[in-house]
Parts: sequence; structure tokens; C-alpha cells
Amino acid sequence: MSDIRKVLLDCDPGIDDALAIALAIGDPAIDLRAITTVGGNVGLQLTTENALRLREYFNADVPISAGSAAPLIRNVEDASHVHGVGGLGGAVLPASTLPVDPRHAAQLIIDTLRNAPGEVHVVAIGPLTNIALAIRLEPRVVEWAASFVMMGGSFTRGNATPAAEFNVFADPEAARIVFGAGWQVTMIGLDVTHQARANSDVIARLAAMGDLGTELVVPALTFYEDAASADGQGPAVHDLCAVAYISHPEFFTAVPAAVDVETSGRLSYGMTVVDFDPPLPNANVPTGIDKPAFWDYVVASYATHFTATGRVGQ
Amino acid sequence: MSDIRKVLLDCDPGIDDALAIALAIGDPAIDLRAITTVGGNVGLQLTTENALRLREYFNADVPISAGSAAPLIRNVEDASHVHGVGGLGGAVLPASTLPVDPRHAAQLIIDTLRNAPGEVHVVAIGPLTNIALAIRLEPRVVEWAASFVMMGGSFTRGNATPAAEFNVFADPEAARIVFGAGWQVTMIGLDVTHQARANSDVIARLAAMGDLGTELVVPALTFYEDAASADGQGPAVHDLCAVAYISHPEFFTAVPAAVDVETSGRLSYGMTVVDFDPPLPNANVPTGIDKPAFWDYVVASYATHFTATGRVGQ
Amino acid sequence: MSDIRKVLLDCDPGIDDALAIALAIGDPAIDLRAITTVGGNVGLQLTTENALRLREYFNADVPISAGSAAPLIRNVEDASHVHGVGGLGGAVLPASTLPVDPRHAAQLIIDTLRNAPGEVHVVAIGPLTNIALAIRLEPRVVEWAASFVMMGGSFTRGNATPAAEFNVFADPEAARIVFGAGWQVTMIGLDVTHQARANSDVIARLAAMGDLGTELVVPALTFYEDAASADGQGPAVHDLCAVAYISHPEFFTAVPAAVDVETSGRLSYGMTVVDFDPPLPNANVPTGIDKPAFWDYVVASYATHFTATGRVGQ
Amino acid sequence: MSDIRKVLLDCDPGIDDALAIALAIGDPAIDLRAITTVGGNVGLQLTTENALRLREYFNADVPISAGSAAPLIRNVEDASHVHGVGGLGGAVLPASTLPVDPRHAAQLIIDTLRNAPGEVHVVAIGPLTNIALAIRLEPRVVEWAASFVMMGGSFTRGNATPAAEFNVFADPEAARIVFGAGWQVTMIGLDVTHQARANSDVIARLAAMGDLGTELVVPALTFYEDAASADGQGPAVHDLCAVAYISHPEFFTAVPAAVDVETSGRLSYGMTVVDFDPPLPNANVPTGIDKPAFWDYVVASYATHFTATGRVGQ
Repeated sequence: MSDIRKVLLDCDPGIDDALAIALAIGDPAIDLRAITTVGGNVGLQLTTENALRLREYFNADVPISAGSAAPLIRNVEDASHVHGVGGLGGAVLPASTLPVDPRHAAQLIIDTLRNAPGEVHVVAIGPLTNIALAIRLEPRVVEWAASFVMMGGSFTRGNATPAAEFNVFADPEAARIVFGAGWQVTMIGLDVTHQARANSDVIARLAAMGDLGTELVVPALTFYEDAASADGQGPAVHDLCAVAYISHPEFFTAVPAAVDVETSGRLSYGMTVVDFDPPLPNANVPTGIDKPAFWDYVVASYATHFTATGRVGQ
Repeated sequence: MSDIRKVLLDCDPGIDDALAIALAIGDPAIDLRAITTVGGNVGLQLTTENALRLREYFNADVPISAGSAAPLIRNVEDASHVHGVGGLGGAVLPASTLPVDPRHAAQLIIDTLRNAPGEVHVVAIGPLTNIALAIRLEPRVVEWAASFVMMGGSFTRGNATPAAEFNVFADPEAARIVFGAGWQVTMIGLDVTHQARANSDVIARLAAMGDLGTELVVPALTFYEDAASADGQGPAVHDLCAVAYISHPEFFTAVPAAVDVETSGRLSYGMTVVDFDPPLPNANVPTGIDKPAFWDYVVASYATHFTATGRVGQ
Repeated sequence: MSDIRKVLLDCDPGIDDALAIALAIGDPAIDLRAITTVGGNVGLQLTTENALRLREYFNADVPISAGSAAPLIRNVEDASHVHGVGGLGGAVLPASTLPVDPRHAAQLIIDTLRNAPGEVHVVAIGPLTNIALAIRLEPRVVEWAASFVMMGGSFTRGNATPAAEFNVFADPEAARIVFGAGWQVTMIGLDVTHQARANSDVIARLAAMGDLGTELVVPALTFYEDAASADGQGPAVHDLCAVAYISHPEFFTAVPAAVDVETSGRLSYGMTVVDFDPPLPNANVPTGIDKPAFWDYVVASYATHFTATGRVGQ
Repeated sequence: MSDIRKVLLDCDPGIDDALAIALAIGDPAIDLRAITTVGGNVGLQLTTENALRLREYFNADVPISAGSAAPLIRNVEDASHVHGVGGLGGAVLPASTLPVDPRHAAQLIIDTLRNAPGEVHVVAIGPLTNIALAIRLEPRVVEWAASFVMMGGSFTRGNATPAAEFNVFADPEAARIVFGAGWQVTMIGLDVTHQARANSDVIARLAAMGDLGTELVVPALTFYEDAASADGQGPAVHDLCAVAYISHPEFFTAVPAAVDVETSGRLSYGMTVVDFDPPLPNANVPTGIDKPAFWDYVVASYATHFTATGRVGQ
């Protein structure tokens, strides 16, 4: 099929990362070519093991490399209070048996893009350390990438601090490198991901999908809801939005902007500062999402594909 | 009348400052005791002359002191592109004939509060340089003030920069002093003032008020609309909200918060960082306004009072 | 006598401040016109009381105003570990009986300079809060001052931190205002004051002066040496250098420079950054001192004058 | 010989880099195992070509990898006004004919250290971008290195700015990573390298060495002197000191210190802040050098070795 999109996914599973991996595997319009892991929601050892477990759980054939355990400059920030000590909330998957790729994540990113210039979309849903290192080791990755989509940032308020969103706050200097690299960054920020909450109706639909729902999605989301969303509207599935943008950009309303990252503030360290009336845009910033279409797509991707491949019914 | 509130107004007229002075004079529940001026929307010489002209235009008997021409630390920022070269948009008032009080504004603030401790509400609708100087010269002003209400800041986005609102951006270090002084600051920020636009209906009501409308309010607002509001919803009358809060706090929905000012950021200098879940609130932050009630109050204050005192009909 | 120089001394006594006050009173070429106090070495209440006690101890007729207890922006830093809890080391003076001037120090500075424009030399030997406030309240003070000499800063290393000298570190934003005010600042920094140590020979000469030596100078310096100078070369009498510069600039080798104050560094907050090859100098920076001439002058000023006025022999 | 020390040299030739490469090749106590290049004194393409030319000029058999053209975070700073447009001052060497190693410099650093853990001394005499990237890609390099010596920084004043030395100023964030990596950094800063000037006597000795002197050393130093040293004391051969430290640490007087890099200052960005009385030292800071012994060593290393290998006389 001509419009299947190749994707490299840089992630820190993490609950919504797990659901995003599931989506990237389940979406028939996406060909997942590589997974790279970074320390973030929980430590690198856990995010890598979680990625390995998810790969086997989904019978996926995709190389996985471990990347940076720590941010470029700042000290480590983690979010295990949100994602559970193991990083997948209440979901428990069998230990992995297949090996990790020996290359550093930044090298796998470079190699994957060099081998298919113009073809691979890079989706980053954790702190941007690996992406920044890849850019600094091989600046041509920004030309080789078909596109770059990230989950992170905000044009209003943060969640790690009043000013900063977690993924950018976790490595602001890396994010600054990424936004300044010369490519267009599609920034899926909190303003739009907070519009995509998994409310009780959505959770009921996911629960009805069989093993995938009962073994992974619902235990993960249920934990996440307890920790991250006190308002009863359900958890925001941030990372899913970034994957969805690859095959369905039409779900999103987006505007051009100039985005830079505050790396020197006393109170606003890690904030994405978004100028919507810039001389030179470097970013494409979704501001709205067609929520019903988005959830129909998510449920369909999960259900159809996993039934077809036999994962759920095996 | 027992619930008439004494007010000291620190301002930088400026279009909406002029309308706020008119409101403070017109509102029968407010007893305007002093006006102090600061450089801001336009230079100090102009803001002071505008205040003097407005005092005579309204036949008000209130001392006016000039304060700081420049911010505490940073260089001057002005907004004459928004307020017109003279600072009152299209309104032209006769030159003043009565003198300015020889004291520095900070001294008039100190003296006014010392003379009636617990009685005078301080309303600041320009950069906070004078207030900060008064606090540093006489720290007891924070105990003597009946309350402190300011127009400035934001808990989402700015207008001077993507992160910073004009009044705070114009003197961030002064604002940091004010928020850290140990009193409770009611911060009327852009998030709420942008809900109080003077749309075409409102302007029609104001235009129908007689001389005040045709000589001052409408020419000022019309200019302001051209410069500041391209979206057709009418100009936001920021400063009026701060005066309204004194006699009608019930118009506003407000929440406690901890507010601090970014004074060291590369991109976010002058941003108010607002924590809505703080260990120790230092601020009261309105988030919503009853717009119909607000405009009824503004029109009534203008119309009734100015008719009664003969200013409009003289 | 035509070349007697009028001096206003802004200080935070403090051991070497006490000796500097003694020098300004003792030096026949100096006419001390006002003393203003600031919080610094110890708290404002103590620095003011110490100034009052010293005035009576020396039978001096000079107004004393209290100024700022706290820095403009940052939190308080004190140095009571260096100056003793009371601020005068081991010296004990009788409690004061004469009143403080009711004006804020900044106001006394403004009034003193306004009343004799071009005649009064301002010497600041504590944190620069009062001077900065005076400049912000009345910018013409920089024109009215005959000259401005400060003790503070460094062009190599600091003493409060590796980068910052105590007086500037104690209020970096005030220092930035002072250096940027448009006048020429003579900055007597650590590089030169560390060349003026009171070694054992000097202390022997001071001890031989009678009451002044045994009651004040030696007990103060002896304490100071214990706390501040572990290398056996004796205490650096920083503040004396600034007073000496007024009547004896020929003791010093100085060069023009551009000096600014770091107000945003993570590690270098409060550092004076000194450019010796600037496009536009704003400072005169002594780099060397004629140490024998300096000490001869100090001892002579102390001995002659206090004997003449009867203070020592009374 | 048992005490021959293996060295990896990270450099940006650059005049004194060229002389340092010559020294590392000429010193019989040093076994140069790898050269890595970084953009710095001039651009990466030139520093790499210069390294390649020097390798062939000296008939050295050592791999050379190109590294980072640009700093981690900040924009490029170069020093071609000091080193000449080509980077070697007045020296002209034949174009290179042998290839560069295809690995990124950071990878060559990692591989060289991994292959001989505990044996290879890392000497960095340019901006620290490559070293920082190696640390972030493989944190164990800090354990594998036998020692780490850098030329850069200062504990008093800078040369790129009043506060910052060029190599650290060229990539402050990289330097911060390097100082914080958990190893002991020997920081050969300006304070000591400015004691090692090549005065006219030294230049006469170097000129008498034959081809090496007349083709490379003297033309390079003569240019350097014109650009960098206006005081007639001759150029400071900064980078030679770092190489000398490997085989002759006894030439230096050094003290432990805690060193960190200012990455957020307005005026002091890129400054090394050196605390000589720290709770936890992370650095060894030479403060003095035995200048006669140093120059005897340099001249002997150049003369003996190059005569022996036939390079000078061939």
C-alpha cells in the first residue's frame, strides 16, 4: 500500500507510551521500523525492558535500542508517581526474552534515517535527549527525516511546573537543540492532548476489545487516571496523539509558530515559549483535535489489527 | 456612607487608565484619595500631564504625584503604539493648570497609607515601580494598605511577549518585589481582562452618555481598538477591571495562588508564574468575570455621576 | 581651607566601617557631612546603633539616617561571622543617646546632595541599596555628587563566593543600578584592598595611639583578623581605602574600565565583571596602592586629630 | 619502556594545537594513540585538515576522527583572528593525502578507551564538545580514562570575555558536562599558561632546530604573537602545557578545587568558577609552572625526536 508511513518511535514507556506503541503497531497505515528508549517517565532500564516486553507481547519484529539514561545537562527528573514504579501502571507483562540492539539509540536513529532518507517519520514521545544527540552526532538526520512529530510542550501552562510540560522539562537543553535544528517540528502539546481524554465511554469501548483491553490498556489507564487526573474527565493519552498525527493529520487543527525552550529561567526552566506571529516559524502546533474521529481511529486500530494478527485471540 | 472605599490609584494614562480614573471618580462607592503616575504606556511626563488633565476635566480634588520615569533595573519599554503618541488615543483634553504634588509618588503612597492605616485600597494599573519603591522605603505600607489590587500578569500567555504581560514586563523586578512583600495581591490578569471586551453594543451605550462619551471614552476606545484588537471583539478595558474589583469583587470568580515573577529567563523575562496548588498562596487571582454586570456598573458609574456633578451637562 | 572635601558616608558598621568613620572624622582634609546606614555586615538596627555610638564616641556633629534593612531584590546576606554579633568585633562602646534623623537614608542622600550640588563626595562602603534607591527616587543625584567612590567588587576573585565580593553580592541589583547610573564610579575592589593589610607593625603603631587604639581600633581589628584572615598577613581594612581615596587619590594607581554586575548567573551572581578595554568606560578602578604612604596617612589622621580634639586625652 | 603514556588528543588546530601535536609526537614518554578534532579556533573542516596535514608532516601513524562542528547548545564562536584564516598562522603545510577515520570523534574516543581501559590519558585542548558527547553516549569513558587533562578555563580572568576563557566559552554546556562527569579534571587554565610565554630567547632556540622550527614552529608562533600578545612577552603556548602535564606533572604546582561552569550568566557565560576550599573537589588546578624546565623539555622533545626520525633532516 503506497501510503503506509514508516515510523521510528523514540519513547519512555510509560503508560501512554505503551498505548502509543500498541497504536503504532496496530495502525495499518504505519510501518514501525525502530523503537528507541530514553530515561523519562521511569529510568532507562525500565523503559527499555518495558519496550522489549511490549515488542514480544505484540509479536512485533522491530529493533529496539537503549539510549540516554540521563538528560544532556540537567539532573534526572522522573515521573514514577504517575506511571507506577514499573512504568506501566497496573499492567503486568511477561519478562522479555529477545535482545536489545547493541547500538546507542542515537546511532540507531542515525542509521535508520540514513538508510532510507526522506522515508522515515520520527515520533518522539519522551524527553528529547536521544534526538538531540543524534542531531549533534549527525546533523543530516534533520534532512533525512520525512517529518518530526513530538509529544511535549504547551503554549499555555505546564504540568511538571506551572510553566513547563514534563517531557520538555525533563531535558530542556535537548529540546532546545531539537527546536533549533533547522527542521519543522510538529509539537503536540498539552493544550491539544488535554482535549483527548479517555472518558468512561472510551474506557468501556477499550475494555470490550478482548485481551489487549483487559491485559494492558485498561489496567494501564485506570492506574494513570488515579494518579494524573483528579477531575473525573479521564486520563489524557498524550502520546497517542503524536502517533495519530502521522497517519491522520486531518484530525488536528494546527498553526505555524516559532517555538523555543527556556533554558535559563529561575521559575520557567523547561517552558516552551510559543510565538504565533513569528517572522520565521520553526514549528507546526496543533491547537485542536477531532475527538470522536480520534477515538474511533484508536479503537479501530487496536481491535481490527490485533484480532487479525491473532495476538488477542491466540 | 459606611462602605465607601478609599482608593489610591497608581497609573500610567494611557487609554484604559483614563477610563479607570473616570470610573474611580464616577463610582459612588469609591473615594479617590490620591493619584500617582509612573512611566509605562507612554513616558512619565505624558502620563503625569494626562493625569493632571483628567483631574481638571473631571473637576476632581485629589493630589497627583509623579513617580518613576524608568523601571528599577531593566531598560524602558513603552507602548505608545497602543496608546497613541500622547497616550490617550484620539482624545484631546485641555492642558492642565493646577500643580503636581512635589513629593515623589512613592512618598505620596507612603504618606497616604500612613495617615489612614487599614483604610486605603491601593490599585495599581501600570508598571509596579512606584509600589516597589514605596515598599522598599517603608516596608509597613503592606500592613497599612486595606488591600492591594493590580492589573497585570497572566496565568496563560502574555501580550508584550508570548510569556509576559505588558505591565509586569515593563518592570519585572518591581513586580517581584510587590508579589514578595508579604501582603495578598489581587492579580487582575489578561485571562480575565480579555473577557471584558468593549464590543459594539457597549460602545454604543457609552457613546450615548453625552460629553464624557463623545469627548473622552469613545475617541479613546476607538483608537485603542484599532491598535490592540484585530479580532473585532472590541478592546479589552484591562484597567477598569481593577477599579471594579474594589467596589464589586462579587463580579469576579477568583482562586488563591502563589505568584512569582520570572526575572532571569532568556525568553520568559517578566512572566508571572502562577501556581494554583501552592503550599503558601500570596495572591488572589480572578479567573472569570460577570461581563453583563460589569458593563452595567461601568455605564451606570459614568452616566449617573457625571450627570449629577454637572461635568457632562455643565 | 579650600581643599577640604565634603563627604557623605554610606556604611554598615561593621569593623572596618567603624575605622573608616574614624578616618573620615580624623582626616583634616575631610568634612564629614552625613552618615547613612544600610543593612549589610550585620542587620540595619545594629549598623545604625553602631553609627550612633561612634558619632558620640568621636563627639562628631553629623546627621545619621537609617536606610534599607534588606536588599532591593534578593534575600538578606549577612556577615556577622566576620564582624561579630554586634558588628564591631571586640570593641564595646557606650549606648547612643542622640537621635537618628527621621528621613530615610535615600532621602538624606538626596537632600544633602541637592543642597550643595557639585560639592559632596559620596563614599559607599556597604551594600549599595541606599545609593540605588536615591538614584531611582531622584536621578539628578548622579549629577549633584562631586564624585562617587565605593568599596566593593573585584576584577579577579570574590570573597563571599569564588566570583563575588561581599558588598556587591549583598545587593547585586542595587550595584547594577549604581554602575549604570551615568556617573563615573571609583571601584575600590578586593584586588587593591587586599594589598592594604594591617600587619603586626601597623597594629603596633595603632595600639600606641592611646584610647582610640586600645578602646576601638585594636579590639576591632584583632577580632577581624581572627575571623577573616587565616594567612597571618593581618586583616584587610577594605573600607579605609575608600575614604583615603577622597583626600589622597595619589596613593592609588587606577585605570579606566567598564564595570557591570552579574545579576543572573547560577554561580556568579553578584560578580563585578570588569572590562579593561571597553568602548565606554563607566568606572575608575584602582589596581595598586602605596601601602607605606597609606598607613602613614591613616595613623597620622587618627593620632593628630583625636589628640587635638581631646577625644583621646579627655 | 614501562612508563610511556598512551594519549588521545582532542584538539582544534590552531597554532598551539599544532605545536601540541608536535610535542605529543616528539615526546618519547608519550605514545599518541588517537587524534580527534573539533570546531573551535577555526571551523571543523579546517581543524580536521590541519590535523591530517600535521600527521603526514610528522609521518605519524595515528587515527584521526572529525567530531563536532558546532557546540552542544550555543552558537559557534571562532578565533580565526588569533590563529589565521587557515588556523596555523603563517605556517603552510602540504595538503593531506591519507583519509580521516569514518567514526565520529566521540565514537573514536569511546572505542579507544574501551579497548584499553585504565591506560589512555585523554588530553583536550579545544572546546569540549566531543568529550561531552562521548560521556553522554557512553558514561563509562570516565572510568576507562587513565586521566583527563584539559587546557581551558581560569580562576581569575578570561580572554574571550572578561570572565571566560576561549575553550570553555566556545562550549560552556559541554564543559559543564565534563566537569560534572564524576572524574577528576586537571584544568590547565590561563593563570598557569600565561606563565609559559615563548619569549624571544625561546623563539631563538626553536628557530635553531632546523626544518621543524623554520617550517612550522616559528611561522606559527610569530603570527600568534602578533595577534594575541601585545605586551612583548611572547605568545602563551596554552596547549603545550596540557601535553607537558601528561609526562611531566612535576613541572606544575597544583591544588584541588571544585570547578563548575557558569551556563546562565548575562555577563559571565562560560566562566569557570573555581572554589579552592570546597567540600568535594572535582578538579586538580595547576597554579604555577617551572618555566625553565618546561621549555627545556619542549625544545628537547622537538629536537631529539625529529632528528632521530629523520623528519627534520630528511
